[in-house]
Amino acid sequence: MAVPDKHILLMDGPDSKGLIYHVTGVLFRHNLNIIHNDEYVSPSGRFFMRTEFDGTFDSATLLQELHTTVPGSSGYIGSDTNAQLYKSDDTSSQAGITFRLNPKRKKNIVVLVTKEHHCLGELLIRYAFDELDADILAVISNYDLLKPLVSKFDIPFHYISHEGKTREEHEDAILQTMAIYEPEYVVLAKYMRVLTAGFVNHFPNRIINIHHSFLPAFVGANPYRQAYERGVKIIGATAHFVNNDLDEGPIIAQNVKDVDHRRTAADMATEGKDVEKIVLSQALKLVFNDRVFISGNRAIVL
Amino acid sequence: MAVPDKHILLMDGPDSKGLIYHVTGVLFRHNLNIIHNDEYVSPSGRFFMRTEFDGTFDSATLLQELHTTVPGSSGYIGSDTNAQLYKSDDTSSQAGITFRLNPKRKKNIVVLVTKEHHCLGELLIRYAFDELDADILAVISNYDLLKPLVSKFDIPFHYISHEGKTREEHEDAILQTMAIYEPEYVVLAKYMRVLTAGFVNHFPNRIINIHHSFLPAFVGANPYRQAYERGVKIIGATAHFVNNDLDEGPIIAQNVKDVDHRRTAADMATEGKDVEKIVLSQALKLVFNDRVFISGNRAIVL
Amino acid sequence: MAVPDKHILLMDGPDSKGLIYHVTGVLFRHNLNIIHNDEYVSPSGRFFMRTEFDGTFDSATLLQELHTTVPGSSGYIGSDTNAQLYKSDDTSSQAGITFRLNPKRKKNIVVLVTKEHHCLGELLIRYAFDELDADILAVISNYDLLKPLVSKFDIPFHYISHEGKTREEHEDAILQTMAIYEPEYVVLAKYMRVLTAGFVNHFPNRIINIHHSFLPAFVGANPYRQAYERGVKIIGATAHFVNNDLDEGPIIAQNVKDVDHRRTAADMATEGKDVEKIVLSQALKLVFNDRVFISGNRAIVL
Amino acid sequence: MAVPDKHILLMDGPDSKGLIYHVTGVLFRHNLNIIHNDEYVSPSGRFFMRTEFDGTFDSATLLQELHTTVPGSSGYIGSDTNAQLYKSDDTSSQAGITFRLNPKRKKNIVVLVTKEHHCLGELLIRYAFDELDADILAVISNYDLLKPLVSKFDIPFHYISHEGKTREEHEDAILQTMAIYEPEYVVLAKYMRVLTAGFVNHFPNRIINIHHSFLPAFVGANPYRQAYERGVKIIGATAHFVNNDLDEGPIIAQNVKDVDHRRTAADMATEGKDVEKIVLSQALKLVFNDRVFISGNRAIVL
Repeated sequence: MAVPDKHILLMDGPDSKGLIYHVTGVLFRHNLNIIHNDEYVSPSGRFFMRTEFDGTFDSATLLQELHTTVPGSSGYIGSDTNAQLYKSDDTSSQAGITFRLNPKRKKNIVVLVTKEHHCLGELLIRYAFDELDADILAVISNYDLLKPLVSKFDIPFHYISHEGKTREEHEDAILQTMAIYEPEYVVLAKYMRVLTAGFVNHFPNRIINIHHSFLPAFVGANPYRQAYERGVKIIGATAHFVNNDLDEGPIIAQNVKDVDHRRTAADMATEGKDVEKIVLSQALKLVFNDRVFISGNRAIVL
Repeated sequence: MAVPDKHILLMDGPDSKGLIYHVTGVLFRHNLNIIHNDEYVSPSGRFFMRTEFDGTFDSATLLQELHTTVPGSSGYIGSDTNAQLYKSDDTSSQAGITFRLNPKRKKNIVVLVTKEHHCLGELLIRYAFDELDADILAVISNYDLLKPLVSKFDIPFHYISHEGKTREEHEDAILQTMAIYEPEYVVLAKYMRVLTAGFVNHFPNRIINIHHSFLPAFVGANPYRQAYERGVKIIGATAHFVNNDLDEGPIIAQNVKDVDHRRTAADMATEGKDVEKIVLSQALKLVFNDRVFISGNRAIVL
Repeated sequence: MAVPDKHILLMDGPDSKGLIYHVTGVLFRHNLNIIHNDEYVSPSGRFFMRTEFDGTFDSATLLQELHTTVPGSSGYIGSDTNAQLYKSDDTSSQAGITFRLNPKRKKNIVVLVTKEHHCLGELLIRYAFDELDADILAVISNYDLLKPLVSKFDIPFHYISHEGKTREEHEDAILQTMAIYEPEYVVLAKYMRVLTAGFVNHFPNRIINIHHSFLPAFVGANPYRQAYERGVKIIGATAHFVNNDLDEGPIIAQNVKDVDHRRTAADMATEGKDVEKIVLSQALKLVFNDRVFISGNRAIVL
Repeated sequence: MAVPDKHILLMDGPDSKGLIYHVTGVLFRHNLNIIHNDEYVSPSGRFFMRTEFDGTFDSATLLQELHTTVPGSSGYIGSDTNAQLYKSDDTSSQAGITFRLNPKRKKNIVVLVTKEHHCLGELLIRYAFDELDADILAVISNYDLLKPLVSKFDIPFHYISHEGKTREEHEDAILQTMAIYEPEYVVLAKYMRVLTAGFVNHFPNRIINIHHSFLPAFVGANPYRQAYERGVKIIGATAHFVNNDLDEGPIIAQNVKDVDHRRTAADMATEGKDVEKIVLSQALKLVFNDRVFISGNRAIVL
């Protein structure tokens, strides 16, 4: 099977001598051209490599050859059958090196929001001009406030109120709607409800949230209020993967902004929006370009 | 009594209409020239004003006239008899407006250090070239490692080891040495021991510390280790007043620096030093120029 | 005439003793409440003050009293009859102090664009959610590319091609369309044509441009190409008033972003967009809130 | 010849398929361990690679094998016989790939200063605590102002006044003093005289300067005065290699700091010092760790 031009090879596992040599050798023998190669070895001896290359090849043959050539290979996930991230420290992958091979392409996402428009607006404009590296399949919200905005961009908007529902009932309703779209990633663009472990487990390492503080400062509700009361001189925002502990998942990107004592909590919230939406967009660009590995609670960005 | 040229008038208390008018009126009638005036009203209705002015005047007369002219005045602290900051939310000052009048002059300080040289080196170089807005009367350390550095600058160095002493005995020894110098401010330039409430109470709002994290993230020991493990993408440093709760005093200045996953905790510690020393210097400049009010746990910088 | 609640008093002219006192005295006697007051004296001795206050008053009486009370007053521009900025160093105003009194209200603007959507998209989203402090009366472009975007927000879009027209003919066509709307400010949101002096003179200090470099570096065309070739490590964007010299007007706001050698000129252009749109928005917020004075070629932001 | 543990292999030349594979293969067969590998291909097709590795090996054999194994190799500079950078776009090296092999070690430098102490002080403190990655062999100045500071650190200080000398005579005197020390790099730590081409040619790509502006803005004298007059909202500093055009050499590092209209040119100069000294130190760290390639007028930092 001939495959399209640009591909990304992701590799991670225990470090050993010659890994770069073995992998680049396989690519060389397939007459493939490395556009960019980046690797990282963690202090605990785990090796991560992302190789962007172009050329014509048969993906099954290439993956098989990587598997047999590279010492310590424990397997591969090929041809984008499964684009999502997986935890590199799973027991299985700890045992050896794993390869994933993805064609360079846009990802499919669903966006969850509550009432605030700034992050959603940012994503919609980028999507409308093909700058998001993703297709927004739908927007889901527990309020109908942002329906008019979403409608401007001809994207399905699902209003699923949480009122009169238990948390589980509400999440079930969302999951049913999600099931229509089968998104590769779920983006929480200021979705202001805590998700249960049950929900999160449906999308392991595939939910990205923007938190309106410089984590780990000001976990939880009202971070700008907390920031005001603590009298910080800098505020920030954090884009991170969601796991089962509130605001504790691997951090993908952060940015900050100077403030002074004159800013009220409301001022900080207003000014912080600019930081939030840009950080979220930057983090998504990294994830959608297959540049993010997860290692324990840390995100490795290659 | 004729006084030297530049003065700083600090005023704080409950806000009411006409405060700026009344104060600037007194200065106008004394033929004084306002160089810079800055004020702030907190959301809870507290008024802060810092007025830098020059001209020749009698300070007792001026303060007395401010006291009688400005509605709500509860008193004043005059002519630099007491240069230190005081908590503006003391019960006494809550009752009314208080004035402080300071000539613009260098402050006297003692610096406490442990083993790290970067903040101390920064202060010494600035002091040697008269850029610190303070005179370093002495350096005290629980190690003798930095004695050679301090000796280069002809400043007394006191090595007061904590070994074989209780915390209280050690602090008592420091306090006895301090008593020789009577510093207006105590600067903790990477002094790595927690101070007791007993010690802190000797210098209310007059101890400034540099903490090697972006507070309130990573309170306590080994913040760079904590930052590495949390996988943050930005590290920082915080200069703050010391009160009785560890790393909880009012924040004067903060700054940050981008990092990525490649930085080990040790790398972060190395790179963070540049942030720490500059933030500490900037905070000290603000404090030594009488630009910092304390309001609850917040620092108002005018 | 009773006027609405919040007002902004802008004052500038030669500095002299007692200016703050005299002005705050007039406000005090009218029983007005100062919400925020900020002033600046330039090294050349020019005084600028912006006073935000609330309360009920007669504006004609207030301005007349300011004029007669404040020594050196040369006149006033009252009650928002003329909301635009004027050059504070006009011969006329040099002669004395001038007052302007504006109710706090949204401004009316027209936006000019060419092909790029990012700044326009930012303004439209802010406008749609009432965060722009301005009403966008119309968008004018020399291409029709952005018409679909503008249409989503129910704002008139005028496509005025420059093809087959002289520069003057094209600008005349734009001016005729402008005349329908009588905007207080003209925003160049990536309008990629140089304006003639004739055009600029229609809107003195009322045209705001975003330039995609850290001015004064990389004036003129293709600044990201220039930045790439010079090998800079930081790129930036600059929002400024437009005068008759290309990219030379007073700078309102700037911001920057780190880059490295890996970024091509095209990458810089993509990443720079985020900086451009936020800087433009921040500058507009300052201008539309009457916080910007122009002094020669410098912008004083109070 | 057995050599010490950590080495850095620098390689640059025309890009072709398999370069990483061939080089890492040689290292693998010598049983060497790659600690960090980073490469870059310029838009014009030039390949740069920096490989940090450890292990025991014979350097002559390794270089010879790299030369014979890697297609397109045109030669090598081995075993640190010549640690300095060279222009990668020399005609000779354009012809093919060149290798340089350096042991990881401190560099020898001479520092030139005029009157300002802040950059020099920073370098001295770092040197005193072994944080500079270089040995300061001597400090040379056209004033004797900084002699007391240098003396504290037991480093030779040469006062070579320019008075009564032509520019060439002055530079000759400096070169004669330099000849005593044979430095690998010359650091201009606020040396405020323009160097002639004759002087610069003695140290091709081996002179590093700190310029007190965000280049290319404000080339030449009094950049802070220029910045004040232009009314910029951000100031900066630039560390760069010196070539024959004033302030035009390849930029190694830059940093910036927000300012506002209140800062006079003198204030900017004071605040800018903190940026200057940190940027210079960061650039030197990069250069002294063999992380900087020069490509035309751009610095590639790997």
